[in-house]
Amino acid sequence: MRVFVTGCAGFIGSHLVERLLADGHEVAGFDDLSTGRQRFLAGALDRPGFTLTVGELRNTDAVARALDGCDMVFHLAANADVRHGLADPRRDLERNTLATFALLEVMRTRGVRRIAFTSSGAVYGDAPAVPTPEDAPFPVQSSLYGASKLAAEALLGAYCAGYGFQAWALRLVSVLGERYSHGHVFDFVQKLRADAAEIEVLGNGRQRKSYLYVGDCVEALVTAARGDGAGLTVLNVGTDDDCTVDESLGWICEALGARPQRRYRGGDRGWPGDSPHVRLDSTRLRALGWKPRVGIRDAVGRTVEYLRANPWLLERGAR
Amino acid sequence: MRVFVTGCAGFIGSHLVERLLADGHEVAGFDDLSTGRQRFLAGALDRPGFTLTVGELRNTDAVARALDGCDMVFHLAANADVRHGLADPRRDLERNTLATFALLEVMRTRGVRRIAFTSSGAVYGDAPAVPTPEDAPFPVQSSLYGASKLAAEALLGAYCAGYGFQAWALRLVSVLGERYSHGHVFDFVQKLRADAAEIEVLGNGRQRKSYLYVGDCVEALVTAARGDGAGLTVLNVGTDDDCTVDESLGWICEALGARPQRRYRGGDRGWPGDSPHVRLDSTRLRALGWKPRVGIRDAVGRTVEYLRANPWLLERGAR
Repeated sequence: MRVFVTGCAGFIGSHLVERLLADGHEVAGFDDLSTGRQRFLAGALDRPGFTLTVGELRNTDAVARALDGCDMVFHLAANADVRHGLADPRRDLERNTLATFALLEVMRTRGVRRIAFTSSGAVYGDAPAVPTPEDAPFPVQSSLYGASKLAAEALLGAYCAGYGFQAWALRLVSVLGERYSHGHVFDFVQKLRADAAEIEVLGNGRQRKSYLYVGDCVEALVTAARGDGAGLTVLNVGTDDDCTVDESLGWICEALGARPQRRYRGGDRGWPGDSPHVRLDSTRLRALGWKPRVGIRDAVGRTVEYLRANPWLLERGAR
Repeated sequence: MRVFVTGCAGFIGSHLVERLLADGHEVAGFDDLSTGRQRFLAGALDRPGFTLTVGELRNTDAVARALDGCDMVFHLAANADVRHGLADPRRDLERNTLATFALLEVMRTRGVRRIAFTSSGAVYGDAPAVPTPEDAPFPVQSSLYGASKLAAEALLGAYCAGYGFQAWALRLVSVLGERYSHGHVFDFVQKLRADAAEIEVLGNGRQRKSYLYVGDCVEALVTAARGDGAGLTVLNVGTDDDCTVDESLGWICEALGARPQRRYRGGDRGWPGDSPHVRLDSTRLRALGWKPRVGIRDAVGRTVEYLRANPWLLERGAR
């Protein structure tokens, strides 16, 4: 199979590429390198089955050329950081919703109709039920990021109903592991490198979140895309566990041998639109044979280990 | 109060303008006249409290000028026809999602944070439960129109959470009444004028839909916007009744004295993405004191009466 991967140079994308190549597929990778990093693809670029196109999804000619001959698409390219939407509300709209639309249009006109998409548990807003199933009550959005991912899912649904697409939307919790390059573990490690005596914690530290190891995330994508269901299949992806920000910080400090004073910014959320409790019910995906292999504490540990071994990533402005 | 109304020259918008003026408000109307008609505003244009700006919502300077001094926004401008999305998938995205984003951005930068929005029951896709409540299970979208309205709702939710907006999203069933200028009654009347002997019916004629009289729709908008709830309030708007396409056609034929042979295109849907059964649970809105005054059969009758009295609307390409 020849597979098109958007966001192929990103944290999750680069792992997916390696997995697809290892499974014997050809991979046409596409990335604008705005947050992805070419060095994450060092291994893949040595393989004959891999090609990299550096470009933007709104450049439909470039997408069409790269998509040529592909059987399916893994669409991972996105603004993946939920926290900074309010500073620039156009970013989530453009990089998530409109980029997805541009991609779907190229797929439609080129006759490629199979797509797996990395959505997010953020689409549940402040979920009333935890763990949250896919058919939870119709949520109200609380972040521009969640809104942009939901809008992209909605387009997938419409393309399935109207143009015969087959699609999988995977609603992910936060992902951790090697090549992880933004989020709370990253921030804590970066802050502790600068000042091991004191650390600022967003919110009250009691926000509870579920996390997923990147290897388990890639396995979820590959498992979902093996399916032959019609229309749009929505699948939660997460561990059955969660931890508080305080607990996670404790594991990070332990790994780094740091004992900082904790200073809390206060409130029950890390930022406006943050959900104080995130855990997803992944029963549907488990029924397809998937299960997570790495627990949250271990995923945090591997992430810290990776960041320690790759301090270049922690430099501000590192590319 | 000074009120900004987008889509003010449209079917529903022009009725809302008259109602707001009658209630003593000043109205700044905005319309690009792409489907709205200036003659629908004949009465309003004679009133000193009304101003009309002809322009597009993506022209943010024009929107900002017209919005100046307004306390709240009724956002009705949209591609309102659910049926033709597949012929041009960009239209719903641009005219519904992106136009809403452009408007929200002007509101945010100008400090106007109160908005009522005409969403649609189409966001429920193929709803598993009928009548469908607002907190129905998280739906999968089945039309580009529904997807575009859901994306707009999602933006409203994010602007409420992130920027302190107050918003009301009214999920409407199809609306009928005076100035109605697209939809199944319009199509049937137009077809019967051309050929009273035979008529084509989309689907099998057994699709069941709820309809709402335009006066009741305006009352719902005004009732909702009186609320002082925080964040995004979602409200279904529809009668507690429904009818089949066949029944509705029967009433239309009776009003027109026509006895056409019915020819069915077949299938349980009128078009790809059509939902075979639409009826919404409006309990939430009723709890605010609203109730519909006009039943479906009467609404169909008034619509036919209006179209008979205004044959210019039925001319193809009429403006």
